[in-house]
Amino acid sequence: MKLSCTKENLYKGLLITGALAGRNVSLPILNNVLLKTTNGGLTISATNLEMGIVTTTRSKVEIAGAITIQGKLFLELVSLLPNERVDLELNNLDLKVNCGGHQSVIHGLAAEDFPVIPEVAVKGSLAVGAADLSEALNQVLFAVNPNESRPEISGVLLTSGGDGKLAVVATDSYRLAEKILTSTKGHLGTGQLIVPQRTVQQLIRVINATEDLAEVEIKMGDNQVLWQVGETKVISRIITAQFPDYQQIIPKKTNTELVIDRAAYLQAVKSASLFSRGGINDVRLAVWAGKKQLQISSANSQVGEDTSAIDCHSVKGGDNEIVFNYRYLLDGLNAIPDKEVLVQIVDNNNPGLMKPVGQNDYQYIIMPIRQ
Amino acid sequence: MKLSCTKENLYKGLLITGALAGRNVSLPILNNVLLKTTNGGLTISATNLEMGIVTTTRSKVEIAGAITIQGKLFLELVSLLPNERVDLELNNLDLKVNCGGHQSVIHGLAAEDFPVIPEVAVKGSLAVGAADLSEALNQVLFAVNPNESRPEISGVLLTSGGDGKLAVVATDSYRLAEKILTSTKGHLGTGQLIVPQRTVQQLIRVINATEDLAEVEIKMGDNQVLWQVGETKVISRIITAQFPDYQQIIPKKTNTELVIDRAAYLQAVKSASLFSRGGINDVRLAVWAGKKQLQISSANSQVGEDTSAIDCHSVKGGDNEIVFNYRYLLDGLNAIPDKEVLVQIVDNNNPGLMKPVGQNDYQYIIMPIRQ
Repeated sequence: MKLSCTKENLYKGLLITGALAGRNVSLPILNNVLLKTTNGGLTISATNLEMGIVTTTRSKVEIAGAITIQGKLFLELVSLLPNERVDLELNNLDLKVNCGGHQSVIHGLAAEDFPVIPEVAVKGSLAVGAADLSEALNQVLFAVNPNESRPEISGVLLTSGGDGKLAVVATDSYRLAEKILTSTKGHLGTGQLIVPQRTVQQLIRVINATEDLAEVEIKMGDNQVLWQVGETKVISRIITAQFPDYQQIIPKKTNTELVIDRAAYLQAVKSASLFSRGGINDVRLAVWAGKKQLQISSANSQVGEDTSAIDCHSVKGGDNEIVFNYRYLLDGLNAIPDKEVLVQIVDNNNPGLMKPVGQNDYQYIIMPIRQ
Repeated sequence: MKLSCTKENLYKGLLITGALAGRNVSLPILNNVLLKTTNGGLTISATNLEMGIVTTTRSKVEIAGAITIQGKLFLELVSLLPNERVDLELNNLDLKVNCGGHQSVIHGLAAEDFPVIPEVAVKGSLAVGAADLSEALNQVLFAVNPNESRPEISGVLLTSGGDGKLAVVATDSYRLAEKILTSTKGHLGTGQLIVPQRTVQQLIRVINATEDLAEVEIKMGDNQVLWQVGETKVISRIITAQFPDYQQIIPKKTNTELVIDRAAYLQAVKSASLFSRGGINDVRLAVWAGKKQLQISSANSQVGEDTSAIDCHSVKGGDNEIVFNYRYLLDGLNAIPDKEVLVQIVDNNNPGLMKPVGQNDYQYIIMPIRQ
């Protein structure tokens, strides 16, 4: 193997793949990235066995070849190189790196020992705006159940009916976040796809690290899914369990609906959180329809008590009260970038709802803490 | 106790004291700050028994009084309040906090139970520019021996001969950093003062958090020292052990002297560090006087090897070689803000020296790793 490329391109490729190459003690080759020449240049691959990332870096290849070397080490080294041409040359298992006045030799492991990242037999394919997808995944990811005891909710659900809509949903059974994307092209073969949490984290990272990216293509296989992100492929397993029928928990009616300044609401929930009971994390919302106020309060016999009264921009319906875990409230308020939020309450026996004002593409539902 | 102040002033006062009020399990009152009315307004105090911080916040006092409350909780709460007037009112041990539409009640502990922060019987006093002092402490603090098995080098030494000069020195016996400040006023009573590492960290924090600060006054007592930083007093114990006679380890001659670009040197040491031997952390410097080059290299049988050759801006003397722990080199290079550094080497049996070019107020000395 002998090739040259710019420091900048090599660094970008390693940044995209490098974070997946971790510090695996039981299978050290997973800490490595696979470097392999192809027609287009140099491909860099990393895998944690659950998922793989393969990216292509523009390079001038003189002699074809392949080697695996420590991902973190190579990433750090390349980050320190001057902004010049990098020459890579393989001598048995030693990779020589030359750049400016700098020269390294890195001991590698044979390319044949690197785990094969599976090919995906594509059954259906859907294209979606890259920025839209990244935002949608960020707006629901925090609601995933991180505990794998319930695999069906340990990932993000994507469903598409072929009508251009893509629903992106996550829940941990205490709260649920749903984002609807509209202008997508194509069709997921099965209509439904549950993507593991870690894959979604890596996918968001890869999308954000890729410049000049318009679309992401989602290519469904039987048990695998491939995300084409510019010059990068992210390949991962699919969770095959059945996602719960979440439509039934979305409240169909509302007794009290209010519009409130998001920043003021967020600050009040944060200050109430300082006084809420440990392990319960309860804060109480009380709507005073007559005064058009939302009161947020908490009390803890050890610490003290806290109350904020916020003037609402509008209130429909009557007085109401509901108790939430403040962490779930904060997550939802942080996921809505708008200046105002709309809050809908039935009563303290039914889930409450929060969404941006005047938009129906995002909603966040929280189960109350029953008294 | 009943008073009012601005949110901004209260927040600044808590920011200065709050970081010292930690999470002490065995003596919970140390997690509290003491609030006490005085003529000037409200004083806020925190202590960890080794040191204390007392600051005064401008306030309108209606009823005098005192209480202690959880420092971190109060700091977080005040940070979330709207930018308005804050009213504080004490009812037995409950502190009522009112601000805008927000109201809290915080359960406190009696002021009498708060540890007394000692008064300092001032024997000598020295005034020094605040920015100079903060920079000097930052430039030596990292070299302190954090292990209290050798108390005499577990703090920063300040010595003053009354000639306007103040030497600020730290060592862990493997390397030593010295900064000389010139235009100080006054005289430390004993001439010598060793300040515990944690006090120095807090002092730097307080100086940086204080606006419109020209000078810091250092007031020496017998076993205590008081730092007057604007409206804030930092009071701490002194280390009474004897600091080693460090002048004798500063090399008196040099065989090779070079001037080099700091950023290029730093990058070369970092890339060599990736290949140095774990636990030894050795990187080799080789000066080629004829080529006017400094070569920085390392090798590790497991990982590989790394060499950078950097063109020096000037070289005096002959070829030379010395081996350093890369961590000590990085610390020194990070402490010198200048574009160029001057490096002096005797041989691999004597300490090496590094300083900014054309300045004699800072020097950093590292013991070599003998081969």
